[in-house]
Amino acid sequence: MQIGMIGLGKMGYQLSLNLVDKEYEVVAFDVNHESMKKISSMGVQTADTIKQLVSNLSKPRTVWMMVPAGDATQTVFEQLLSFLEEGDRIIDGGNAHYKDSLKRNEKCEEKGIYFFDCGTSGGVDGARNGACTMIGGNEEVFKEIEPIFQDITVENGYLYSGKAGSGHFLKMVHNGIEYGMMQAIAEGFDLLEKSPFDYDYEKVARVWNNGSVIRSWLMELTENAFSKDEKLEGIKGIMHSSGEGKWTVETALDLQTAAPVITLALMMRYRSLEEDTFTGKVVAALRNEFGGHAVEKK
Amino acid sequence: MQIGMIGLGKMGYQLSLNLVDKEYEVVAFDVNHESMKKISSMGVQTADTIKQLVSNLSKPRTVWMMVPAGDATQTVFEQLLSFLEEGDRIIDGGNAHYKDSLKRNEKCEEKGIYFFDCGTSGGVDGARNGACTMIGGNEEVFKEIEPIFQDITVENGYLYSGKAGSGHFLKMVHNGIEYGMMQAIAEGFDLLEKSPFDYDYEKVARVWNNGSVIRSWLMELTENAFSKDEKLEGIKGIMHSSGEGKWTVETALDLQTAAPVITLALMMRYRSLEEDTFTGKVVAALRNEFGGHAVEKK
Repeated sequence: MQIGMIGLGKMGYQLSLNLVDKEYEVVAFDVNHESMKKISSMGVQTADTIKQLVSNLSKPRTVWMMVPAGDATQTVFEQLLSFLEEGDRIIDGGNAHYKDSLKRNEKCEEKGIYFFDCGTSGGVDGARNGACTMIGGNEEVFKEIEPIFQDITVENGYLYSGKAGSGHFLKMVHNGIEYGMMQAIAEGFDLLEKSPFDYDYEKVARVWNNGSVIRSWLMELTENAFSKDEKLEGIKGIMHSSGEGKWTVETALDLQTAAPVITLALMMRYRSLEEDTFTGKVVAALRNEFGGHAVEKK
Repeated sequence: MQIGMIGLGKMGYQLSLNLVDKEYEVVAFDVNHESMKKISSMGVQTADTIKQLVSNLSKPRTVWMMVPAGDATQTVFEQLLSFLEEGDRIIDGGNAHYKDSLKRNEKCEEKGIYFFDCGTSGGVDGARNGACTMIGGNEEVFKEIEPIFQDITVENGYLYSGKAGSGHFLKMVHNGIEYGMMQAIAEGFDLLEKSPFDYDYEKVARVWNNGSVIRSWLMELTENAFSKDEKLEGIKGIMHSSGEGKWTVETALDLQTAAPVITLALMMRYRSLEEDTFTGKVVAALRNEFGGHAVEKK
């Protein structure tokens, strides 16, 4: 089976190799010529342009987009759409907002092209050796491309989740849950660090991974992290985020759903980006104003 | 090896059977005669009183307490302490507050008895087939009772966590993390339930358990729950708690540590206990006072 792959970043590169292993004929394109050169020695065909990629595939074509959400996805999508023909399929495996995926699905429907929004989890290692995917789109046509998902995921690691948009929505919520779980784990270790006891965090994470209620892949990653740096002294506690947590919170607002823990996990990430805060200045100033409490001068 | 077991509730009963399987000579006591009768047919000796249990063990004795935290633990502890002798060991496998365990350790030290506070995770199934334990107490004497933990836990499922108190502290924080993780998972499913899509939650939990970042034992339990009742229609959303989450939050306050997600997870449990809230009445009344916004009458 042939498949086009647009985007050879961390995920798309590994996914292409995964597909080649499963004997797919992969035709790849990326704006980065280095990635193209590198992967062409690994059994992946490359195309110089998206147009050429499309013309190298036989109909009905299946093209997997694996590019950053936002402008990059939109640009690639528009180009791809202009070259594809009725009956072709686009799989967007990136982290697009589900509302954008709904719009892209409409655009595809106008041309008789099938759009699948595919949330992909499991990180870079998953992309290479067995990912977890959740896919929205046309149910009948999904059956034709289902073998791809069977082949690139771990056992029971893919789900046809319903109409277009449902795959990216599900992945977004997955990431929201991830924010909450990570913050809960981290707060727990912070309590241990401030406790009167002297714990070995790697060993704590290991025992919690064996038979406890909170055993999880995230706790395994915690164990790995502490095995490399027992107090994480080489890392600053700055928690960046890449958008899906924010979308989850925005969606909770849209749906008038109380999701306080996920929301607060996101807010704590924002808090971590600032060394000092204006909130802190205002509260310190007010305590000084009404109670004469000392402020710490800058 | 001989071991005394006080408390044949859900956990102590299963743990006794687990110990018998591993060829320990278990002498058990419980105030509930039914439990004693039931377990005596399973190869466990029983004693009519704590005094008798102690006299049935040869020195140095090892007695495992598995009774509810609070008064029950204190009553059993005091009795046990009055009968035990220098060199004997008490393992408190219940969920005592670590500060109580620190006090009990002091009492034991006065008599030359070794106190071990043992946090036990993994639920009833873990107690029977392989638990996860974290144990604080005297390091040298721990080595003598270490085989017990090797035998009753899953592989890598026990940790000597340091001086007395550290085992129950660690278990308390484990439970705090559990509260946060559970609330995050639950909020995610609430978003799915209010979404414009129609998900099969059992299948969602299953795909998330296979290759995704949030795969975890809690997500496996989520899968089980949805497999029995696809929308959990038979369950009210009332979230009880049994104390350790509260202790974690109190400890965060004591240690002046920000643990907002664990705290909020606990508060959401309290919120779930009330059908209507006084908070809600006050806010509704204020909106009416300043803006004439309609209130819903009782």
